[in-house]
Amino acid sequence: MSWKATVVTLFPEMFPGPLGQSLAGRALEKDLWNCETKDMRSFGLGRHNAVDDTPFGGGAGMVMRPDVVDAALASVDHAESLPVIYLTPRGRPLAQADVRRYVAGPGVVLLCGRYEGVDERVLQARAVEQVSIGDYILSGGELAALVLLDACVRLLPGVMGSAESGEEESFSGGLLEYPHYTRPAEWQGRVVPEVLLSGNHAAIAAWRREQSEMATRERRPDLWAAYDAHLNRNMVAGGDLSTSRRH
Amino acid sequence: MSWKATVVTLFPEMFPGPLGQSLAGRALEKDLWNCETKDMRSFGLGRHNAVDDTPFGGGAGMVMRPDVVDAALASVDHAESLPVIYLTPRGRPLAQADVRRYVAGPGVVLLCGRYEGVDERVLQARAVEQVSIGDYILSGGELAALVLLDACVRLLPGVMGSAESGEEESFSGGLLEYPHYTRPAEWQGRVVPEVLLSGNHAAIAAWRREQSEMATRERRPDLWAAYDAHLNRNMVAGGDLSTSRRH
Repeated sequence: MSWKATVVTLFPEMFPGPLGQSLAGRALEKDLWNCETKDMRSFGLGRHNAVDDTPFGGGAGMVMRPDVVDAALASVDHAESLPVIYLTPRGRPLAQADVRRYVAGPGVVLLCGRYEGVDERVLQARAVEQVSIGDYILSGGELAALVLLDACVRLLPGVMGSAESGEEESFSGGLLEYPHYTRPAEWQGRVVPEVLLSGNHAAIAAWRREQSEMATRERRPDLWAAYDAHLNRNMVAGGDLSTSRRH
Repeated sequence: MSWKATVVTLFPEMFPGPLGQSLAGRALEKDLWNCETKDMRSFGLGRHNAVDDTPFGGGAGMVMRPDVVDAALASVDHAESLPVIYLTPRGRPLAQADVRRYVAGPGVVLLCGRYEGVDERVLQARAVEQVSIGDYILSGGELAALVLLDACVRLLPGVMGSAESGEEESFSGGLLEYPHYTRPAEWQGRVVPEVLLSGNHAAIAAWRREQSEMATRERRPDLWAAYDAHLNRNMVAGGDLSTSRRH
């Protein structure tokens, strides 16, 4: 059975969208995954199919009603046996480890909020995972859902060829990846670092590691601190307290 | 003149994609922004319009050639006066402050990588900003570009109504937002927190702040540490060293 994505949204026409093309699109055609949507509007109340109402306690914007969201989630087959994920800036940050966990299971149910968000009670009642794709504000959860699905689909068995699978290195060892170079060897007076042309595999590996460390220190002090702490712990565990790891 | 997004990509048909609908789609129709694509393939070399080649120094996957990427970027009008942004997990994390900076200017040029990424020299030669939308791996830069554009477009003048603008609170004061509740006041035996029905604005504000702090501490130790350090600095600056901020 193929891996199954069910998206609960007010904008079902956004899916599969960009995932209908390229790598994910070919995988969709090959039935390696499938993408179903549930239109939240069709569970709305009254003549206008209302899905939202004003927030208790005051404040700007509208909040999605718990009864409407619950009815939409209840319409998903086997939702009890799948992770139900609500995309929200209030969530835990999505990491590659989460992606691997989702891919290891039969599929995911993705809840896309609009307006100010979803009533907290339905998130509690259904033990919904709250996940954030980053510290910026989107107009709704739909693009976040597409991002999460793209990250998942590329890891499904049979989706990537061996030529593509090297990408997994992007965060190897908790560092950012090293810079890449290809032909021409000289371009606009800029040459490829000499070591990469040397054929000396150990020297190339050392240079790449150094470049990864430099980029991480400069761009991601958060990752660098975690990496550094980890290295130092290993040093202590090895009893090697007297020398720096750089020597 | 409307805000201008130019996307340099191997998959131009992915744009505007989901941004052709909802909030961003209406803004596109109203000409509040526009979205142009440059097909990188059309700048490829030889009979097969090759855009990539094997990496110097070895390793899996292919790297996008500097000459091809440069030619595609050179075809963008006024690229010198616009931020050129390369979406890559090697970049600095995208934050809401970056989004506001992009929106304050005339537009952005977004470079979408595929395969292992882009030759480093063209990024240096054109002073390209390297930006990451999160610590997960996508099949290419296109979905990251859509995310960045969605975050930008909603902030353009005239795009959001006043009812929608409250969303800006999502990271107010460096904390995650408080939980939301709406009608019905009781649902499946779950009631809305009493304070939200009290009409006591000070009590509501205090409860929401407490909820924000709790969620941040639990889900985002990184944001919490920064917030806590900031509060403590302010304490010291105010000379109030003897009492905890909780009293």
